[in-house]
This record gives sequence, structure tokens and C-alpha cells, in this order.
Amino acid sequence: MKAIVKKTDGIGGLALEDVATPTITDTQALIKIKKTAICGTDIHIYNWDAWAQKTIRTPQIIGHEFVGEVIEIGKNVNNVKPGDTVSGEGHIVCGKCRHCITGAPHLCRQTVGIGVNMDGVFSEYIAFPAGNLWLCDGNIPLEILSIMDPLGNAVHTALEFNVLGEDVLVTGAGPIGLMSVPILKRAGARSIVVTDINPHRLDMALKLGATAVVDVRSQKISEAMKNLDMMKEGFDVGLEMSGSPAAFGDMVDVMANGGKIAILGIIPSGVGIDWDKVIFRSLTLKGIYGRRMFDTWYKMTALLQSGLEDDVKKIITHSFQYTDFHEAFEVMRSGESGKVILDWS
Amino acid sequence: MKAIVKKTDGIGGLALEDVATPTITDTQALIKIKKTAICGTDIHIYNWDAWAQKTIRTPQIIGHEFVGEVIEIGKNVNNVKPGDTVSGEGHIVCGKCRHCITGAPHLCRQTVGIGVNMDGVFSEYIAFPAGNLWLCDGNIPLEILSIMDPLGNAVHTALEFNVLGEDVLVTGAGPIGLMSVPILKRAGARSIVVTDINPHRLDMALKLGATAVVDVRSQKISEAMKNLDMMKEGFDVGLEMSGSPAAFGDMVDVMANGGKIAILGIIPSGVGIDWDKVIFRSLTLKGIYGRRMFDTWYKMTALLQSGLEDDVKKIITHSFQYTDFHEAFEVMRSGESGKVILDWS
Amino acid sequence: MKAIVKKTDGIGGLALEDVATPTITDTQALIKIKKTAICGTDIHIYNWDAWAQKTIRTPQIIGHEFVGEVIEIGKNVNNVKPGDTVSGEGHIVCGKCRHCITGAPHLCRQTVGIGVNMDGVFSEYIAFPAGNLWLCDGNIPLEILSIMDPLGNAVHTALEFNVLGEDVLVTGAGPIGLMSVPILKRAGARSIVVTDINPHRLDMALKLGATAVVDVRSQKISEAMKNLDMMKEGFDVGLEMSGSPAAFGDMVDVMANGGKIAILGIIPSGVGIDWDKVIFRSLTLKGIYGRRMFDTWYKMTALLQSGLEDDVKKIITHSFQYTDFHEAFEVMRSGESGKVILDWS
Amino acid sequence: MKAIVKKTDGIGGLALEDVATPTITDTQALIKIKKTAICGTDIHIYNWDAWAQKTIRTPQIIGHEFVGEVIEIGKNVNNVKPGDTVSGEGHIVCGKCRHCITGAPHLCRQTVGIGVNMDGVFSEYIAFPAGNLWLCDGNIPLEILSIMDPLGNAVHTALEFNVLGEDVLVTGAGPIGLMSVPILKRAGARSIVVTDINPHRLDMALKLGATAVVDVRSQKISEAMKNLDMMKEGFDVGLEMSGSPAAFGDMVDVMANGGKIAILGIIPSGVGIDWDKVIFRSLTLKGIYGRRMFDTWYKMTALLQSGLEDDVKKIITHSFQYTDFHEAFEVMRSGESGKVILDWS
Repeated sequence: MKAIVKKTDGIGGLALEDVATPTITDTQALIKIKKTAICGTDIHIYNWDAWAQKTIRTPQIIGHEFVGEVIEIGKNVNNVKPGDTVSGEGHIVCGKCRHCITGAPHLCRQTVGIGVNMDGVFSEYIAFPAGNLWLCDGNIPLEILSIMDPLGNAVHTALEFNVLGEDVLVTGAGPIGLMSVPILKRAGARSIVVTDINPHRLDMALKLGATAVVDVRSQKISEAMKNLDMMKEGFDVGLEMSGSPAAFGDMVDVMANGGKIAILGIIPSGVGIDWDKVIFRSLTLKGIYGRRMFDTWYKMTALLQSGLEDDVKKIITHSFQYTDFHEAFEVMRSGESGKVILDWS
Repeated sequence: MKAIVKKTDGIGGLALEDVATPTITDTQALIKIKKTAICGTDIHIYNWDAWAQKTIRTPQIIGHEFVGEVIEIGKNVNNVKPGDTVSGEGHIVCGKCRHCITGAPHLCRQTVGIGVNMDGVFSEYIAFPAGNLWLCDGNIPLEILSIMDPLGNAVHTALEFNVLGEDVLVTGAGPIGLMSVPILKRAGARSIVVTDINPHRLDMALKLGATAVVDVRSQKISEAMKNLDMMKEGFDVGLEMSGSPAAFGDMVDVMANGGKIAILGIIPSGVGIDWDKVIFRSLTLKGIYGRRMFDTWYKMTALLQSGLEDDVKKIITHSFQYTDFHEAFEVMRSGESGKVILDWS
Repeated sequence: MKAIVKKTDGIGGLALEDVATPTITDTQALIKIKKTAICGTDIHIYNWDAWAQKTIRTPQIIGHEFVGEVIEIGKNVNNVKPGDTVSGEGHIVCGKCRHCITGAPHLCRQTVGIGVNMDGVFSEYIAFPAGNLWLCDGNIPLEILSIMDPLGNAVHTALEFNVLGEDVLVTGAGPIGLMSVPILKRAGARSIVVTDINPHRLDMALKLGATAVVDVRSQKISEAMKNLDMMKEGFDVGLEMSGSPAAFGDMVDVMANGGKIAILGIIPSGVGIDWDKVIFRSLTLKGIYGRRMFDTWYKMTALLQSGLEDDVKKIITHSFQYTDFHEAFEVMRSGESGKVILDWS
Repeated sequence: MKAIVKKTDGIGGLALEDVATPTITDTQALIKIKKTAICGTDIHIYNWDAWAQKTIRTPQIIGHEFVGEVIEIGKNVNNVKPGDTVSGEGHIVCGKCRHCITGAPHLCRQTVGIGVNMDGVFSEYIAFPAGNLWLCDGNIPLEILSIMDPLGNAVHTALEFNVLGEDVLVTGAGPIGLMSVPILKRAGARSIVVTDINPHRLDMALKLGATAVVDVRSQKISEAMKNLDMMKEGFDVGLEMSGSPAAFGDMVDVMANGGKIAILGIIPSGVGIDWDKVIFRSLTLKGIYGRRMFDTWYKMTALLQSGLEDDVKKIITHSFQYTDFHEAFEVMRSGESGKVILDWS
């Protein structure tokens, strides 16, 4: 079968190769890949940055965002059957620790990442642990189903705190920050203010339903707050989606007393904040990683069925045949795109 | 009446003065002070540190930890009556903001502090806003009732997260850190590890029921964890009671995935932490300030009635006549004490 | 001033009378009534049913749903000022019990009802306890503000459990049941099924956004469930808004395991249910009364500002001058109406 | 191997038989049974009551409370290994429904009961689904480990609502009601009042730490409340452990506003209650079934390690060789016992 392989250390080095079609164990399902999407993680691997250098062992098939069809199941598999449309959770957990056996496997410390610590989904077939599969609603378009992994990050972060009737600040309008806007809207947020330094993305945020956007290169969040006639002293909920120390610092600054911040963006280690604000204003900061298995997937499906599908479509800007993956990676690396899809059907 | 007044700017400057006995408004109660306790805040004022210099306007009566008896009530007061034994919440809130009118006045941004932003309780009488009074259980000894304010800090912090069956780390064994130990025990914590750099205080922590203590000058928290045969990868709950950047950094380091940290200690602004741990381990950090009005006071009373009283007594190490306040302040400043009481009866 | 007084025991007996304009105490505000709405409770009083006979002491001014303007404030009032537009919480609480002082005054056992246990708001002026007033957003139309009391019942019930992505059953399409439909929608419910025996009301429910309606005289809830392709074994959340034993029994029957029911409808005492379903399916049943003070009012305002206003307007079907109150009561008693407004401006 | 088999329909009919030692599948573990305990369910089967008649298909090995040692594991098992001491969850769930995949398998509607719907553990060996096993702390005595199933019912019920500082009513002092007393104590309950009609059991409740007991044949709960000087209008939390309509009705009667009731006792279908109390007092009623997998098991283990072990021991009153099972069943049926153990080692 064909697969996109990171062949060698160093920047680039991706190649479409012929590799052996995998065989399944008793607890796996063989999936025919239909569509995949390119994640920022895949770009890190392509760029061979510090994180990639210490994490990836070449040669390796990359990719973890996908939708496919079940072709064959192992003899101990009973949650899916051939013909089912499936996406899947790319975090393989230990199944034995306290978190895994008490309903919080997303907290497992032994997590192994598909397409990161082991071969990924940018290939015609993959042998996938059946317990990690999500049985999809076949009425949802395949291209949407192929991005349930990053959409799940957005759902996990946006639903971490109750936003109904609340004023919400989102710092960072990358694909996941953008996805969070219609989710927050459907969850009943009173106002949604989005910050970034890219006018194109801020414009996209407005189209997706943001109440106001702030280009922090030239504007202050406090002005947006004034224009919105916000009821109180600051934002009730914050979603940190940028990983920028400046954005995070600004957010801590403009939260209401008792405000809650969900942090998905990767703040560099050692960054300092104004702890007086955290303590005397009783702020809550919570790190978010991955998706709740499978509560996030369930809520995400319900949201898609209730209309979120139409919003999410707007965030998918490009689609390529998998054979044109070089072009797809170039588009992703340009920063001039939303989600980029590869078609394998 | 007699009152302890911070007369002049600069270190020291406390004097016992004759001042006018206050008169009450329609919504206040006149309280005859029975016992007061000296808080770290009072020491900051005595020492005239940076915080005191920007906050205190001399001359001012200081003090906010007290118990007393209602002598007279304003005509619109109906929650207490003459003869009642009362302590009180030293944070006077606006009563109008969202937090105040939705049951979370401890989050009010307009809080004014008795003994800090206005005259305090180190005096024979005080006119106190009736809505800030806590009607005490007369079966609890007066000296215990006089420290409900700091005990309430400990209760607020220790009960912020569910600790039943959990492994808890407390960084800092000052009076409030020490008070938290028996509270955690009564709340069902599986193990309680306390860190500090003062052997005397660590010894006290053991006497109050800590499972293990760690003198971080010579020991590592990881060793205590090994000895305790802790079930998992780290602590489930952390109470930061030291304000020390090193202690806080250590705590972030040894939390289990999904761990929750309540921060009462005042971490200096700008201190950096390892955000990778916060994000990839899905930690929660929550700032704690004051006491929930009056849920903390209710739970604290129930705990005292159920036996906490005997533990808390051990933390009170000294008692003086108010006329000997100079000596009391010296004891407090020596660091060789637990809570220090002044008697005004 | 003019007031609508229930003059005598027995059915009817309402009269427009001249009564003394009230004077305020130090903690009250004098309100010029702008608009009031007729509640089912007012009809009970009119009809002089068993509940009214044991509760109401004639002669009494009735009514509790209102909006007005502050004309004058007592000297201890600081949360409103003359000129403010206000509605108010009709439950006057003791202010002293555990619930009142820990942020849950809606649970006070000493509650006194305005227009029920004391004179009400169907009059040109009322002296209202200032602490019970809600400062209104002046951009919301007066007729909407006059029904914040029943809308608050709907908000309190609909937000009791998290409905985002969930399938919700509402039994009873009276005004409050109808109001709950757009609230559930804005809170992200996946599907909303409404039952009643009045086709006109069910039609209204559809117009307000219900996914499906069931006339239980001729249809079964299970059929609606099949048509909706509900994801699981039953409803995740139920709102009992009918007080009908049959409807309540049906609801218990069709809940998913772990389902949650909020009960606002007044189920007759002694009615039995199938406890096996409650126990073996781990259902939660929760009684709802009044409105959270003032969290429900805050969330309600935020929802109205976010668009709920347009939905709620549809539920107001009639408006009369207060002098035509006889006609207004006849419309309400006919059952052929939504909310009915009286204008006092 | 030897097994206790319910051979025939009708009362009694238990026999010790030679049956084939089971073989395991890839996902099972073979367990050598060490100790088992007799549950009320086993007595229902023995007595062949209406429930047993419709549920049990004879011949069947009965029993579900056990501890044993892993002898052999299937090739896909990695959570236990030979030599491990294990107990296990007797509810086998589907693994596919929403509840199973979102961390709430105790809510699965397809649950199959070991020893009820299939052969049980009263035998020398059992082939057990590995995912249902709980890896025991070997420092806890085997007799305690053999009753983790019913102790888990008590832990699940007692921890359903936060009891720290609260007044708790337990109706029913059978083994599970008794177990709940020391759990409530360790969770910080302020007072624990237990009702029953058996003086021996009430005496046992006092020994286990109940604050007061009420023999409802001759005493009123309200008297106990008066003697306890309870702070408020009633109980904050109720645990219904009796299945008695009268006890349940009494409980609803004496709850504080906002009170919460966890119902483990099986109230007969059709029993009516005073819904006015549920609604106007905003009570919560929640059905409890089984144990949370495996959060209840984790918390239970932590509690046992923290000292609960000593309390639970007192509830085990008899121990027999499995060959003397007839005698053991007679003791259980007499009502003059706590937990009764069968030894298989």
C-alpha cells in the first residue's frame, strides 16, 4: 500500500512509499483510510524542530487525523464491524492506571501517540486498536469526520467551563481557536471576543460568530470590552489557544474575579504571570490536553448533528489527492489556510 | 476606650491609645471585644513593608481576628441581638456586584478590609456591619472563636477540592498550613505530606496528623512519596501555603495527571513555572482568597463541633493581656510561635 | 392610588379600589408600576380554590409579576436609585438562615410571597424591599421585563442540568413549558420533545423550536423517539412542567439510564411512581421552586441580551389597560392565551 | 471442582456439586476463589421469591462477592498476572453504549450479573472477564476483600453527596446501612442518625459511630433531631437503605430545604410520597445501583488503607468452610448476623 513516510531526519524528507499493508491483532480493526487532515504536529515533524528531533524516530508513517471504513476486525472486537465509518482517538492509553479505569483515560501518563510515537494514518490502510475507534454518524460528511481530532480539542477546551450567559475571551485564531467560536455560541456564550495578530484569521472569527475581534498589534482588549458594554469587571471564561506568553498575560489581566481559563496553547516553560491576579481574583487555570474519551466525541457528534457542521465546513479551506501531499504541506506551511484535507478514497 | 493604634509610618510605632468609643449606624452592631489574634498581616503593618507602605494610612487601629459580644444593635439589624457571641468576616463587600448578589461575595472586587483599609478590632469596642457578623456556637471556647478568620482561610483552601481518599501535598507549615492538616484528615485524605524548612513546624505538622513531613533543605518530596507507597504517579491535590516560588515549582513537579492545586500562599508576580506540566498533565491551579461568605464559616463551625476544636487548640501557643501587646508582637515576629492571642475581657 | 384588590372570599371578587399610596422604610424602594403580568397563581386566587382558601387573607392586593421605575429610596438603600427600571423577586426571605447566608436564599424555609402572603404589585405603586429588586437592562422591552418572574422559573428549571448535546423531554406546554423551549435551544440541547394535550400549545412549541411534539391523547412518546433517531435508550434530561401524574409517570418511563429530571410542575401528594426505574436506572429527580437569587436573574438577562427576547415575545399574546383587568382575567381563564399583560403607565 | 449450585426451582435446593473447572478465553483470567460472602441476593435466590422466579434459570452456580488469586490469564489480558490477589465487579457491561465509553459503565443498560444471569463465584475456580477484576492491596485481610462488592454499594451511596459538616440520616441498619456509618464519619459528616426496627442492629450502628439511633417502632426521628441540637430545619443528606415505604416517607418529611437523598433500598413500585416536600423544599432524589467502575473501588481501597478496615471487620460476624454452606445460609436467613463468609482456600 501507499503511505506518506518521514524518511530521514532534518527538514522535509517526506516521501510516498510502498509499504506492507498491516495485519491486525485480535483487538484491532483494519481501516481503509478515506480522508486525512494535516495537523500542526505534522508540520512540526516536517520542519524537524526541537520537539520533533527528540520525539520522532525515522522512518515513520505520519498523520493522526482521519476518517475511514472498517474492512476487517480482530476476533475480540465487538464495538465496530466491517462497513462502519470510523474516526479514532490518536492517544493510545495504558488501560490499567487509575485514570484509565475510572473513566478519565485522557489523563493517562503512559499515552502513546499514533503518528508520533508509532506509525500514523497517512496511508491507505491502518491497523487500529478497536477501543480507540469512534463509530461515526454516516450523515456527517467525510471531510468533517476527518477533522474530529482537532475539533475535539476545541470542544474539550470550550466546554471545560460553563459558558452559558458568560463573556468569553479566546486568545489565538488558528484553526482550533476558530473552531471554538461556533461551539461557544451553541453553548450559549453571551459574548465571544477573539484576539490574534493575523487580520485574515480575525475576519474568519467574525464570520464564525465572534462578537468582536482584537488585532493586538494595534488594539487593546479593554476597548473591545468597553464597546461591548460588558456587564462586569472582565471576562468570565478564557480559552488560551495561542501559546503566546503575551496573549496569556493579557488574558490573566482582563479576567473577572472568579474567572476560569482553559489553556490549550502551549505556553513556554518558565513564563511568568502576575500571580496576584490569580490569587486575589480567585482565578482558575486548567491545562487541557487531547479529548475526553469519549465524552468529547459524543458531545462533538451531538453538536455536529445540531448544526455545527455548517460552521466547521468554513474552516476547511483546501483538499488534495494524497499523491499531491507536497503541495498540501506547502499550503499548510504558508499560514494562508484553515484545515487542509488529503483524500485517499 | 483603649485601642492599639499604628501611629506613624515606619517600623513599629504601635501604641495603646484612648480613643472615642464608636457609635453604630442603623445596620451595624456594637461589639465588646473579648479576644483577638495577631495575623501575619498585622506583622506586615508593624514591619512597614512595601505592601504596608502603599496600603495603610496612619494613624489607624489595626487587627481583624476577633471574638466579642453584641452590646447594641442598629434599628435595621435582625440577625444578631445583644448578648450574642460573634466573630466576623473582615472583608466588607459592595453588596451590589454580580458576585455579591449571586452568592459569591468573596469574589467582590470592591472589598474593603477591616484593620487594613479602615479601623480594626484591636480595641475594646467596634461598630461592625451586622451583615458581616458570624453568630458563634457558645460551646466553642473563645480563644478558638478568635481565630476563625485564619482557620477559615485553611478551611476554604483545604475544602476547595475533594480530598477524600486522595494524596495531598501541603507546601508551607505556618499557622494556616498547620491548621489545614487536621481539616484534610477530617475530610478523609488518604495521605498528607507537609513540606517546610522549619523543623519545629514540621514536627507540629506530624503531631497534627500529617502522614509524612519533608524538610526541603535536606530531603526530597520524591523520597516521601516512595516511603508512602503512593498508589499513583503523584499527588492528587496540592495546597500551596508558603508563597515560595521553589515550593510552588516543586509542587507542580510532583502532581499526578489531573491534579488540583489551591494557592493561598502569595507567589511573587512574574514567577515562572513549567507550563508543560500544567498543560500535558491537565493540572488545575486555583487562587484562594478570604473565606466563602458564609459557607466556609458554616463548614468550619460544623468541623469544630465534630472535634476539630481539639486540634486547633494545639496551634494556639501564646496568650497575653492586650496591655502586653508589645510582648505579643515580639513573640509573633520571632517565628517561634503558632497563633498568639490578646485578651480584652 | 388604584389597586386590584381581592375583596372577599369566594370565586371572583376582584375590584379596582382606591387605597393609600404606601410609604417606604429605610430598606425599601418606592416603585411606580409600569407593567404587570397575570400568573396562574392569580387565577387560583380568583377561582378561590383549596390552596387559595387556606393561604389568602382578604382583602388583599394581588399580583407579583411586574416591571416599574424607582421613585424614591430608603436611607439605607444603595443598590438602586430613582429613575432605575426594576423588576423584583417576589419571594422575601429571612436573611438569617443557613441558606440565606451561604448564597442559596431560594431555599429559605421562611419565604413570604408578595401578592400571596402580603399585598402585591397590581397597583400604581408598591413599597418593595430593595434587596429583592433586580436592576433591569433598559434596552429590553418593558413587556418582557414584566414577565421575568415566570421566565425565571423556566430558566431555573431548564438550566438545572447541563443540556448541551442532550435529548430533552418537556412535559407540559403551558407558558413556562413553552418558555423553556428556546432556553434549552440556546443552551445547546440536541433535541427537545414537548408533550401536552392542547394542539394549539404544541403548535406554539414547534414554532419556538421544539424538535418534535407529542399530543399524548393520541400519540406515544416512543414514536417521537424513533423518528428522531435518538442516539441512546431514552432522554437524558426531563423538565416536568405539567403537574400531571400521567405525564410524570411517562417521563420516568422514557429516561435514559443516569437521566435527570427537574420537577417544576406540582405533582399531587401521594402520587406513586415506578421506583425500580429510579433506582436501577440511577435517575435523579430534583424539585425546583422559584428562582436562584440572583443567579437565575443574571443568566436570564444574559440570555435575553443574546436573542432570547425575540422568542419570549411570541409567548405574550394579550395586553390590556389595568382598568380592563376583568377582561384580562377572562382571557387568562379561557386557556386560549399565553402571557397576559396589564399596563399601568 | 466443587461449586454451590441452585439445582431446582423452589425454596432451598442448594447443593455442593462436582462441576467442570472452567477454561478461559483470551480476555478472561482464571481465579482460584479464596473467600466469598453471602449477599441478600443469594438469600432471595434461596427463598425463590418472585424476583428469583423470573430471573434465575436453574441449575446455576450462585454468588458474586469474592476474593481470589489469579492462576492463569488469557493472551489479551494485561491488567493482572498470575499470583495477583483480586476481587471483581459482578456487573458485566456491554462496553459499547454511551455510558460504557464515556466513563460511566455503571449506567449500562445491558448489564449482566455474575451469579444472577450467569454462573457465579461460589466455586473453587471461576473464569472472570479480566476487565472486571480489581487488583487488591495485599495488605488488606482477605475477609475484608471478599466483601468489597457490598462495601462498594455503601461507599457509592455514602459518597454520592458531599457530607462534610452535614447532618445525615440513614434509614435501615442492615449490613450496607451499617457499613455506611463509618464511611460517613470518615467523610466528615457532622451527625449521623440511623433508624431501624431491630435494636441489635441499632446498637451495632452506635458502636460503628452513629451519633444517635432511632427505633422507629417507639421513637420519632424529630426527638433525635431535638437532642442533637441540629443547626437547621432538618437533615442535609439522606441515605435510604431499607426499601421501606414508611422509612422513605419519614425521610422525605425530615429533610432540610435543598436536602439530597441517595436511594439504594428498593422502594416498591407505585409507592407515593409527598411531592410538595420534594418540590417546595427543592429536594434531590437519586437512585443508586452497583458501584462506579472503578472509582468506587479506588475510593474504597483508599478508605480501607486509611483505617476503615477496622470498622468493617466488626460487621463480619460469621465465617464457615464452604462445605458448611447450609449452616451459613441458615445464619444469614435468621437475621441475627452481619456479613457471613465462606472460606474456599
